[in-house]
Amino acid sequence: MDLATVIGLVSGTIFILMAIILGGSATIFINVPSLLIVIGGTLATTFIKFKMADVLGSMNVAMKAFLVKMEDPQAIIAEMVAYTRIAKKEGLIALEKENPGDPFSTKALRYLSDGYDEGLIEDMLNKDIRLTLQRHEIGQNVFKAMGDSAPAWGMIGTLIGLVQMLSAMDDPASIGPAMAVALLTTLYGAVIANFFCMPIADKLTLRSEQEKLNKSIIVEGAIGINRGISPMVLEESLKIFLSPKERDKEQEKVVEPKAAVEGAAN
Amino acid sequence: MDLATVIGLVSGTIFILMAIILGGSATIFINVPSLLIVIGGTLATTFIKFKMADVLGSMNVAMKAFLVKMEDPQAIIAEMVAYTRIAKKEGLIALEKENPGDPFSTKALRYLSDGYDEGLIEDMLNKDIRLTLQRHEIGQNVFKAMGDSAPAWGMIGTLIGLVQMLSAMDDPASIGPAMAVALLTTLYGAVIANFFCMPIADKLTLRSEQEKLNKSIIVEGAIGINRGISPMVLEESLKIFLSPKERDKEQEKVVEPKAAVEGAAN
Amino acid sequence: MDLATVIGLVSGTIFILMAIILGGSATIFINVPSLLIVIGGTLATTFIKFKMADVLGSMNVAMKAFLVKMEDPQAIIAEMVAYTRIAKKEGLIALEKENPGDPFSTKALRYLSDGYDEGLIEDMLNKDIRLTLQRHEIGQNVFKAMGDSAPAWGMIGTLIGLVQMLSAMDDPASIGPAMAVALLTTLYGAVIANFFCMPIADKLTLRSEQEKLNKSIIVEGAIGINRGISPMVLEESLKIFLSPKERDKEQEKVVEPKAAVEGAAN
Amino acid sequence: MDLATVIGLVSGTIFILMAIILGGSATIFINVPSLLIVIGGTLATTFIKFKMADVLGSMNVAMKAFLVKMEDPQAIIAEMVAYTRIAKKEGLIALEKENPGDPFSTKALRYLSDGYDEGLIEDMLNKDIRLTLQRHEIGQNVFKAMGDSAPAWGMIGTLIGLVQMLSAMDDPASIGPAMAVALLTTLYGAVIANFFCMPIADKLTLRSEQEKLNKSIIVEGAIGINRGISPMVLEESLKIFLSPKERDKEQEKVVEPKAAVEGAAN
Amino acid sequence: MDLATVIGLVSGTIFILMAIILGGSATIFINVPSLLIVIGGTLATTFIKFKMADVLGSMNVAMKAFLVKMEDPQAIIAEMVAYTRIAKKEGLIALEKENPGDPFSTKALRYLSDGYDEGLIEDMLNKDIRLTLQRHEIGQNVFKAMGDSAPAWGMIGTLIGLVQMLSAMDDPASIGPAMAVALLTTLYGAVIANFFCMPIADKLTLRSEQEKLNKSIIVEGAIGINRGISPMVLEESLKIFLSPKERDKEQEKVVEPKAAVEGAAN
Repeated sequence: MDLATVIGLVSGTIFILMAIILGGSATIFINVPSLLIVIGGTLATTFIKFKMADVLGSMNVAMKAFLVKMEDPQAIIAEMVAYTRIAKKEGLIALEKENPGDPFSTKALRYLSDGYDEGLIEDMLNKDIRLTLQRHEIGQNVFKAMGDSAPAWGMIGTLIGLVQMLSAMDDPASIGPAMAVALLTTLYGAVIANFFCMPIADKLTLRSEQEKLNKSIIVEGAIGINRGISPMVLEESLKIFLSPKERDKEQEKVVEPKAAVEGAAN
Repeated sequence: MDLATVIGLVSGTIFILMAIILGGSATIFINVPSLLIVIGGTLATTFIKFKMADVLGSMNVAMKAFLVKMEDPQAIIAEMVAYTRIAKKEGLIALEKENPGDPFSTKALRYLSDGYDEGLIEDMLNKDIRLTLQRHEIGQNVFKAMGDSAPAWGMIGTLIGLVQMLSAMDDPASIGPAMAVALLTTLYGAVIANFFCMPIADKLTLRSEQEKLNKSIIVEGAIGINRGISPMVLEESLKIFLSPKERDKEQEKVVEPKAAVEGAAN
Repeated sequence: MDLATVIGLVSGTIFILMAIILGGSATIFINVPSLLIVIGGTLATTFIKFKMADVLGSMNVAMKAFLVKMEDPQAIIAEMVAYTRIAKKEGLIALEKENPGDPFSTKALRYLSDGYDEGLIEDMLNKDIRLTLQRHEIGQNVFKAMGDSAPAWGMIGTLIGLVQMLSAMDDPASIGPAMAVALLTTLYGAVIANFFCMPIADKLTLRSEQEKLNKSIIVEGAIGINRGISPMVLEESLKIFLSPKERDKEQEKVVEPKAAVEGAAN
Repeated sequence: MDLATVIGLVSGTIFILMAIILGGSATIFINVPSLLIVIGGTLATTFIKFKMADVLGSMNVAMKAFLVKMEDPQAIIAEMVAYTRIAKKEGLIALEKENPGDPFSTKALRYLSDGYDEGLIEDMLNKDIRLTLQRHEIGQNVFKAMGDSAPAWGMIGTLIGLVQMLSAMDDPASIGPAMAVALLTTLYGAVIANFFCMPIADKLTLRSEQEKLNKSIIVEGAIGINRGISPMVLEESLKIFLSPKERDKEQEKVVEPKAAVEGAAN
Repeated sequence: MDLATVIGLVSGTIFILMAIILGGSATIFINVPSLLIVIGGTLATTFIKFKMADVLGSMNVAMKAFLVKMEDPQAIIAEMVAYTRIAKKEGLIALEKENPGDPFSTKALRYLSDGYDEGLIEDMLNKDIRLTLQRHEIGQNVFKAMGDSAPAWGMIGTLIGLVQMLSAMDDPASIGPAMAVALLTTLYGAVIANFFCMPIADKLTLRSEQEKLNKSIIVEGAIGINRGISPMVLEESLKIFLSPKERDKEQEKVVEPKAAVEGAAN
């Protein structure tokens, strides 16, 4: 599971709870009808905006995105380098026996061992990437749409509460608590939008980009293996995908331009 | 009719009604002059912004979009495969006797049986798609414009109510109810924009994309039939239009790259 | 004059008046200093933003756009077809005697009868279209800018009123009416922006597109006449500019692809 | 100085003063600390956002833009036509003695009289235009940034005032005036943003476009002079830069397409 | 350190403090729970939106951007001209002994002295620029995201405070101070977003552009040195990167087009 997301969600919840508890009783902040209109209304709007399968699928995408650990791009490079060593020694057919955990790598190895030609491997794998990104994009759109709807439903709830309060102001003592309840939906809407939906939509975008990067490394690696590029050159050319910081982590090896030249010459 | 839209509209209405009824009398939420200024003003603005035919047409587009069931892309693929079988066996002329429910397919079959050449068939059908999308776009724009106008008219109504209330504050007891009525237009505007117009505009966009997809499958299929591609290859190449999930639904057949190669070679 | 615009402006005004009159005296809604600061301030801002000629010109463009009836594209097509008949029978020189009401058609006919070559005719007429669109765009920008400024000046007026009211709260009875007056500028700003300026800017955009369409038909027609295309083929090729609905209006003639082929072959 | 800007600034100020004076004492609208926090805060933010030279330069650009009168494009055309006459009669070298007021024309004439070749003249002058536009763009960005910051600082000032007022509500009589003062910063922010910064940023954009037009006429003219085009043809081809209205001003001469043809043939 | 930023931050803080202190006690503006929910919540949201390394890295980027002085582009040009003199006299190998402070120049010199060919040097250095820009962009995005979150958390804090105040309105005397505290979070959010995060994001964008300019000069210079261009021509061609103002600073030397021609001819 993504650590930064966990830290963010937990610490943010703690800050909200702290603000609530320091100010007195927390029970005044829980109001089931208010919760129902904000969450229910937001989901209702989302159902009108999207296909049912997309709404349900987006929850799935979000769950998987946070629970399934993203593989480290460096580990993927190491893996691809290991496969190219096997292919050099035992031939492409030997890759059939390899069993990487990731289904995308498995597919890539199967294409290699089945002897498809390079253009076909590249096409099939890139289409897979494109479809995954498309599925992720729907997930992001659903969360963004919920982030847009929640404050609107918070306002609708508050307006309903205000109209009810204002049309029955017989007892001045009840004005305060009634208005407090009316404001709760606005609070719920603001928290749901700004603390849950919007940040999660942004994180899904980031995850999607990282997954694209990881899969691009695999595609590039598979093509390299198919062409019979040497392990060292493959490693060098795959490292271009890493950010400079990640490259630094490997003991600041100076990248030799000559090695890169050889790689380009292949 | 689109199920997700129905669920969204019904459940959203229930949540609003629940919030209203739990808080007391529902009659205070019905105010005919307030409804008139928000709905009337929104429609008036829409008439200024668009041509009359476009405003009326957009209602039509929306109605048809929600009442007419979209054909399943898989059913369309199955249909196109059936037609290619007929064409192979009995010749293109035999397609004249076929009678698909959809007018677009009917048109495609007529062009095939009349023996027009491939470029012309593709041009005529693609122009039809383009014009349909254009008509849908006007519908989306009308609903988006209404979604922009409704909150503005809600605010105009509330301001009128506030001015009236403030300039006649003789009786303090009347302030509350008068302000409640003034806020009603803001509530109406928020509900109309966020619960009706905006989500429906978004759904129309989605429908438009789906319809484009369906018609693209038919165009691609008609071209394939005209070229005499084999039914199996046609099915394979049309399935590329499906999302991976829809492909999975058909018992997870492993897509054979070799079949795709044959298709490409044709 | 554009019917939808008239209906929108009249009905919207009626809805506002209804809301005002149903709530009591209408005189409280008229406040000359409030009107002056909103309208005057909006115009002042518009003068700072644009050249003086552009501000005055935009009013002119808007007036002409609403008072001058747009010609029906079908009537224009019929006219162009009639001219091609004349040109076929009596030669291009005979077009000199024709007198279409529209100055753009007149100019096109003069170029044809003067015997300019096709490229030159196309260039001159397209430049005319481009300059007209540019003039319209300035009109749209002026109205959009006014729509942006009006609510800001409404807020400035309300803030001035609130400061005056708050700094002299000796008589509690005067607070209500003073605040009512302060809110009037916000109301004026909202009505001016959302009911007048913004919708009119949108309508000008639409008009501009329609005028471009009409003039494009004339350009296409003039080129066709110059090339000596047959009236029937010209009509067929000009009808492509019409939306499917407008085409349907002419008794649902089935468009014969063969005719189109002939047209393309010319 | 730009007349529309002067009219806008003066009349807008009059409308604001009128609203203030009609409502009673104007002194309550002047509050030095409130002015300091809005203007000071806005400038502070602008300093953080930009380089110091850019902030100071933008004031300079704005001043020059409003005080230096833009040359009329028609006067520039007349001037270029006069130079082409001189060049025809006395040779390019004679242009050295000419002394146009504008430094850009002076530079163009010097390049012509020094005998640089056409490509070089065009490159050097176009680079000058590009750099001027770039400098203007920084000016526009600074004013836009100030227009964004001013309302935010108005709100910060109002919040500070409200907190102070609310935390010391011992004397109910002081609430009104204290809140009046608190609202002043919001008023200042709204006026500064909507009446000064935003419109001036828009006018700078317009000026920048006009200056680009004027300089483009000079570049085109200089190239024409270098090529030895006849004065009449040069005038015709430079007039294409004018808007149709400006062309009409010259006694509605019918533009002869034949002259344009000759110009194109050169 | 960037002087304009310091001036902006210091003067802005002074203006805020002045507004606070002139209005009475400053202690009412310090409320630890309010600070915690705004700052804590903003950071929590940022953690959900980005990867942990990116959040921490962005602080680093911002710090370095404000503390490390940007090199003057003119100094860089002078340096490159000096290196080309050395290379002309002692050969490219002599550049190895040079030790510029900037790691990017050092890298460029090393590539030159190692004798890599031009295309490779350009590729390697441009990739370095691209990666730096990418890292800066993450920093800008993090600050922009914090600028978006802070006002939202300010509103959440105020809503929590209002609900607490409204649900316990027994003592009217406590309403004012409680509401003052509730408003503090909105104030904190506005200051953090408008005075810190947003302007700093903008300044980082500007810094990033300047750094790109500086590094582009070095790349251009390195290529020139490798080609053996004369020092004077190199200086002339590198000065094109300077803004006209910076060029003026060097005693208004008239740029000789002839020199530029020679430069272009090389």
